[in-house]
Amino acid sequence: MSLVAVGTVAFDDIETPFGRAERVVGGACTYIALAASYFIKPVQIVSVVGDDFPETMLNELRSRGADTEGVQIKQGEKSFFWAGRYHADMNGRDTLDTQLNVLADFDPILPDSYKNATYLMLGNLTPQVQMRVLDQLTTRPKLVVLDTMNFWMNIAMDDLLKVLKRIDVLTINDEEARQLSGEHSLVKAAAKILNMGPKYLIIKKGEHGALLFSEDEVFFAPALPLEQVTDPTGAGDTFAGGLIGWIAKTDDISFENMKRAIIYGSAMASFCVEKFSIDRLVELDTEKIQQRVEQFAKLVKFDI
Amino acid sequence: MSLVAVGTVAFDDIETPFGRAERVVGGACTYIALAASYFIKPVQIVSVVGDDFPETMLNELRSRGADTEGVQIKQGEKSFFWAGRYHADMNGRDTLDTQLNVLADFDPILPDSYKNATYLMLGNLTPQVQMRVLDQLTTRPKLVVLDTMNFWMNIAMDDLLKVLKRIDVLTINDEEARQLSGEHSLVKAAAKILNMGPKYLIIKKGEHGALLFSEDEVFFAPALPLEQVTDPTGAGDTFAGGLIGWIAKTDDISFENMKRAIIYGSAMASFCVEKFSIDRLVELDTEKIQQRVEQFAKLVKFDI
Repeated sequence: MSLVAVGTVAFDDIETPFGRAERVVGGACTYIALAASYFIKPVQIVSVVGDDFPETMLNELRSRGADTEGVQIKQGEKSFFWAGRYHADMNGRDTLDTQLNVLADFDPILPDSYKNATYLMLGNLTPQVQMRVLDQLTTRPKLVVLDTMNFWMNIAMDDLLKVLKRIDVLTINDEEARQLSGEHSLVKAAAKILNMGPKYLIIKKGEHGALLFSEDEVFFAPALPLEQVTDPTGAGDTFAGGLIGWIAKTDDISFENMKRAIIYGSAMASFCVEKFSIDRLVELDTEKIQQRVEQFAKLVKFDI
Repeated sequence: MSLVAVGTVAFDDIETPFGRAERVVGGACTYIALAASYFIKPVQIVSVVGDDFPETMLNELRSRGADTEGVQIKQGEKSFFWAGRYHADMNGRDTLDTQLNVLADFDPILPDSYKNATYLMLGNLTPQVQMRVLDQLTTRPKLVVLDTMNFWMNIAMDDLLKVLKRIDVLTINDEEARQLSGEHSLVKAAAKILNMGPKYLIIKKGEHGALLFSEDEVFFAPALPLEQVTDPTGAGDTFAGGLIGWIAKTDDISFENMKRAIIYGSAMASFCVEKFSIDRLVELDTEKIQQRVEQFAKLVKFDI
């Protein structure tokens, strides 16, 4: 069993109504790897950083079970940087700055030891880069999960549609599902999107939970109502990391186990938002995660 | 066991992206009574209409188990009328016209046979009118459910706070919970609102489901993802009607049974939106309702 995760490792500036964090560690792959590392080791990561990225942080990732052989360190270049400000309701956010830096011409290179991955998590990146990763695999993974966003639907829809034919699970939010399908009803949207290639569609709705669709089944995972959401950054990536981590650990891609994977992903995301950056994600353990998952089970339990 | 429901019986003009319906029967009490009538009979209704309201419709309500002794028919006056247009996403709507007519000086009068109600559903009306109903009761009901909206928070907050001290269950949406409490987190909002009087708070989130809070417990009921939402009008009232109907039928106000009541309410609401006006609500039966409730159970079921 092996897990490869592809995505950004980066710096973020974050402002929320509850405070701000400057030049903190972020990036989809960072969140994915940290979340997945509670379920399976190693997580073989594919990314790119500049020489400004602290070696201590890469060591921290390694100490938690990340294999960083696939992380390119570009001398004389800077890491990807994103700055954003969340609205008072924490649901919307404005991007204040995006500096692609090393990401501008990122060409992912898979070490040989990654090329027969059993599980592959393609974090949000250009569809072309996601495709480049798929092209380097020597065997078809048992499950490929792909995250994307409206931005790529706007500027690279053709490439996105091509990569969708080669993956198994797509994770997007409700507005993106509507945009991708042209259907308002999420039931109709799911039917159309499942015709584009994926076997499973996961629609992430943030504080409203998540929906899982297969061709003939549907599952609704709640979000845990929280006292305090401090910083939503990385919640979607953390969700994906918990999801793929659980699947890799259990090596079971049935619909029943996808449901559990979504609950574990939701539980990890519910931790992520409690503190800035990765601060909450690095202080968990199996017992805390299991207790959180049991809260999810209790939250929706009823007998008829 | 007896159930009294108070609210409007009215005409609506409705425009949605899927069509329009003119001068159709609406009103909170109509939806509440129809939904509740599948669980308990009679539903003793308190309302007011003008002499323009068709006797055939009142007969229809009676044939379905409504006791209309508490419905005042004002000769020479017109029934309450509302016209609205739903946005393309069906979540927002604009009010195009509101004609209070008989509602302007509505003074609810409870027949003697209503005054020792076991269960009381106070549909959305001015808090003063809701209070007038409570004042006429000779015994304290086992459970009083109150529905209200942001409009009354804006113009009659003092009266609303007074009536909240005398009820058991408050049903509002998430934005209203935030407005009423001044808290963004629904967990914190619920804690504050439960301090205002109610023992249970139900936060309705439309297509995102509903949350039930007591002082020390929380439950999340999903909404059923639907192929087609034709007309959301009355969904919240239908939810309330299914809820109070189930509680009256089972005569059990425990948290566990409130959970079931919310699922039955959600199931009734999921039918309501499938057709315009009350068209879908009048064609149900116990078997259809039970099948729908089982869909809700399946939707959230997972084993960890």
